[in-house]
Parts: sequence; C-alpha cells; structure tokens
Amino acid sequence: MLKKIVIFGVGLIGGSFALALRKAGAVEQVVGLGRSTASLLRAKELGIIDVIGTSLEEALQDADLVLLAAPVAQTESILAAIKPYLQTQTVITDAGSIKVEVVAAARRALGEKIVQFVPGHPIAGLESTGPDAAIDSLYVGRKVVLTPLPENTTEQIALVARAWQQCGAVIHQLTPENHDAVFAAVSHLPHLLAFALVDDIARKPHAELLFQYAASGFRDFTRIAASSPEMWRDISLANQTAILTELDAYIAQLTRFRGQLAAGDGAAMHAMFSHAQSARQNWQRNIEAAEVQPEPENDE
Amino acid sequence: MLKKIVIFGVGLIGGSFALALRKAGAVEQVVGLGRSTASLLRAKELGIIDVIGTSLEEALQDADLVLLAAPVAQTESILAAIKPYLQTQTVITDAGSIKVEVVAAARRALGEKIVQFVPGHPIAGLESTGPDAAIDSLYVGRKVVLTPLPENTTEQIALVARAWQQCGAVIHQLTPENHDAVFAAVSHLPHLLAFALVDDIARKPHAELLFQYAASGFRDFTRIAASSPEMWRDISLANQTAILTELDAYIAQLTRFRGQLAAGDGAAMHAMFSHAQSARQNWQRNIEAAEVQPEPENDE
Repeated sequence: MLKKIVIFGVGLIGGSFALALRKAGAVEQVVGLGRSTASLLRAKELGIIDVIGTSLEEALQDADLVLLAAPVAQTESILAAIKPYLQTQTVITDAGSIKVEVVAAARRALGEKIVQFVPGHPIAGLESTGPDAAIDSLYVGRKVVLTPLPENTTEQIALVARAWQQCGAVIHQLTPENHDAVFAAVSHLPHLLAFALVDDIARKPHAELLFQYAASGFRDFTRIAASSPEMWRDISLANQTAILTELDAYIAQLTRFRGQLAAGDGAAMHAMFSHAQSARQNWQRNIEAAEVQPEPENDE
Repeated sequence: MLKKIVIFGVGLIGGSFALALRKAGAVEQVVGLGRSTASLLRAKELGIIDVIGTSLEEALQDADLVLLAAPVAQTESILAAIKPYLQTQTVITDAGSIKVEVVAAARRALGEKIVQFVPGHPIAGLESTGPDAAIDSLYVGRKVVLTPLPENTTEQIALVARAWQQCGAVIHQLTPENHDAVFAAVSHLPHLLAFALVDDIARKPHAELLFQYAASGFRDFTRIAASSPEMWRDISLANQTAILTELDAYIAQLTRFRGQLAAGDGAAMHAMFSHAQSARQNWQRNIEAAEVQPEPENDE
C-alpha cells in the first residue's frame, strides 16, 4: 500500500494512474500538482486527487512515489524544483515517451539523487487529454516499459513496477537507448510520416478537391496527424538520432519502391505488399489481440 | 424501376449494390455472374441475387444495367466476353478504383459499343470482402465518382447515377484523368506508404522486438497495409504515372523534413506539424463528419 503519491500533470496519463491505484485500493492519498489550476480543480472534483499541492515541500513530505506526467520538456525544471524537498525514501518515475533525453535531464536536475529516479513509459492511447479523459482502466493489459538506471536499487524498481501492475499493466524493461530506438521505428516515424502526408496534400493548389475524396483509408492513416505539434516537435528534437536512422531507412525503402514502380515490376511490388500484409496480419493476431484480452483485475 | 441488372462479382461491392437497390424497390431481377461458384451460391442464399447466370447470352437478355464489380484486371476480358450479347438498351458501369486504364481496357474490348460504358467508382470501405460482407447501407451518404466518356448520352449517365442514388450515394463527376490523379494522392499513396513501413520494419533483424511495442498509432497507420497485395499491384501498375508524381512529391517532402530534423530546426518542424494538424482537423470536421450524417433513405 502506498501511503502518498504525488502526480505532476493530472491529465489522461497521470489521472488514469491515480484512478487505477485508487480502484485497486493501492494508495491512501493522492496529491496533484501542475501548471493548470483549472485542471487541478477539475481533478479534485472528479475524485482523481485528494489534495491540490500548495507547496512542493508539503507535497513531497512523506511521499512514497512521484509520477511526472507533464510534457517531457518540463522534466528538468520539475525535477530541479523538487530536488531540495526530496526525501530519501521517495521514488520518482515518469511517463515520457522518450527516455535517453529524459534520463539526461534527470541527471542534470537531480545530481546524486538520480538514484531515486526510475524512468518509465506507459504505452497507452493519447487521443483525448485532460482530467476528464482519465479512466481507471486505461492501463489494463497495456505495456509499461521501465528503463531503470544502473544507480536504481531493486527495491526502487520494484516499487514502480508494482504500482503499474496494480493499474493492470504488464511490465517490460529496456535500456533507455533501446527504448528510444524501438519507439523511433514503431511510433515516432509513423507519426512523422502521417504529418508529412497531410501537410504535403494540404499545400497542393488543388488541396480542397483532394480532401473531398479522402475516405476511410486516409482517415485511419492520418489519425495520428491530429496529435499535438508541440509534443511531436519535442519528441523529434529529443530523439533526433534514432529518428534520423529510421527516416533514412524509410526514404531508402520508398526510393527502392519507386524504382520498382517506374520499371513496372509487378512481381517485386507484389512481393513487398504480400510481405507487409502478412507481417501486419501476424502482428494483429499475435500482439495486438493479446493486449486487449486481460480483464481489469479489480473490475467490480 | 430497373427490370434486370447483371452483376459481375457478388462480393462486398456488387452484393451491397444489389441489396441496396432491392431495399429501395428499384430493381425487379438481379442476375449474378462471377468466377467463384461458391460466392454465387452464397449470394443467392443470402438473397443478394435472384439468379445465377448460366450463359452470358441469357444473362444479358433484356438487361438494363450491368455492374462490373470484379477485380479491375478482369475488366477487359469480361467486357470482351459480353460484347457479342450486349443489346443496345443496356448500360454498363464498373466499380474500379482506377479509371484511365479501365477506360482504355473498355475501349479495346467494346470498340464502338464503348458508348454504353459509363465508368464509376464508389468510395466505400473494403475492409471485409465476399457476399457475407455485403450490406444494403454500404453506400448511404458515400460518394460515387462517375467519369463519363464523351460518347455517353445524358440518359446513359443518368441511369447509372440514379441507380447509385437509390443506394443512398452522392454522385460526383470527374474526368478519368482527374479521378486517377486525385486518388493517387489521397488513397493510393497512403496505401503504398503503409505497406512500405510495415515491410521496412518486418525486414529489420530485430523486427520481433519492434512489433512487440507497436501500439494503437501503428495499428491505425498500418490498417490499410492489410489490404490485398494483388489489388494494390494492379492499382500501382494501372495508375503508375499519377502515383509516381505523388510519390516523388512525398519523397521530396520527407527529404525536406529530414533536413529540418538534422538541423534541429524545431520551429520549422512545429510549423509543418501544426499545418498538418489543422488540415487534418478541418478535413474531419468538414468532410468526414458530413459523410456519415445522412440516414438511409429507405430505412424501415
């Protein structure tokens, strides 16, 4: 049982974490902090948090766990602000979708207290935002990737893992570098490709005509291009190297396909489409389907 | 009222057309033809068709309308086969997702009878296939793009337009060339990009690890990569020129973005993401939302 957790950013990610822990009976008190007073008041109204933190010192007093669920770019300033009040028993984790840069920011901000920071990344949807979007089942059956540091103790890692498990999540571990390389390929690159396609179409002189005829395939393909430009600028800059690697491989792939198309090489195109189709089908069958199966542990 | 329609290919597209016309009370008899006897028997069982055509001569006798809903690559051979039995009052249309090549195939097959062919393309989902996927509401509120030929009479075009309207569809007209240019941008290119991404990931040595962490953004982005490789090979070959134009523009766009990313130009990336986000949001608000609103005209 966690006596006290402190959440920076009480939106979808932080709010759902609090609701899930409450539902599991795994926490006594939740303190909320953040830049938006409106969000904090709303989170209190919705029963996501018990208390709106008024001072960092008071908020951090006797805290077991701190979750950073604010935009990744704020990591360093938040950690620098809390460092003076950070007691030795408190473990900090985060929910940022990049990890190498977050770890670097945490090292700069926390100095020797870096030992208390166990980085993490819950792989959960981001289509809606804010406290009203928070639900206690967001993490049920979802993966949470922890990227522990050499300085972390087994107990600190276990405390963070247990909290996410109590939310219904499945714990994975990667190094921060591997994490960022993986997500550059399966998340960051697709987002950038979708943004680039919509921008490409929107800049054409006959864009209005084109958008008239965009249908369900376009809708699904470009759904992620409705994501936050600020967030994706920050991710692009923070994971620049890994994304460049993936982007270069993809441009090479498209250039290869262009050659096949220009040559009218139906067999080569068919082979590529077939390979992609069966990989997509396997993924859906083996991985995606597995993820939605588990029932909430504490569903009443 | 159409006395008799003949449908080549009684799957999702052809079957839904028949069901919608039946529901509207707009057709007396539906004859089904196709390469798969199992599909024809199933279509008859499901009440999609009244009769399985046993000879082309008999099937085409006194037909008002013929719909080609078989794979686009079969257009020329089907039209060549029916030409000898084609009576002057019969109008032929198709449901192919490319038009320039279909028109060329139709001219080769039909000769002077090309006047009776009014090309069309219903913009409706293709996620499921076969007679069992057919539903009478598939075209409600959807666009059907007709690309009439200079040889068509107003009456012939009107007959095809009226049939689709009775299915609940909204009729648009484009030239075959404009049609293919538009769909190269908003449909063909996104499909090829999704295939290319999945293939790119699947060929990496650590593909299994990568797929482990692919989540909902990846799912939506790559949904269209589960489409038929044969169909997309045929579309790629048939719409080669227009697709090459779009692909080159997109590769140039990605190369430009690559430069911004490599330079760490957050402002330029943010501008592109913002522009794409607002274009995507406008599209969803103004176009996609408009499409799902109309209620079935004959909903009982």
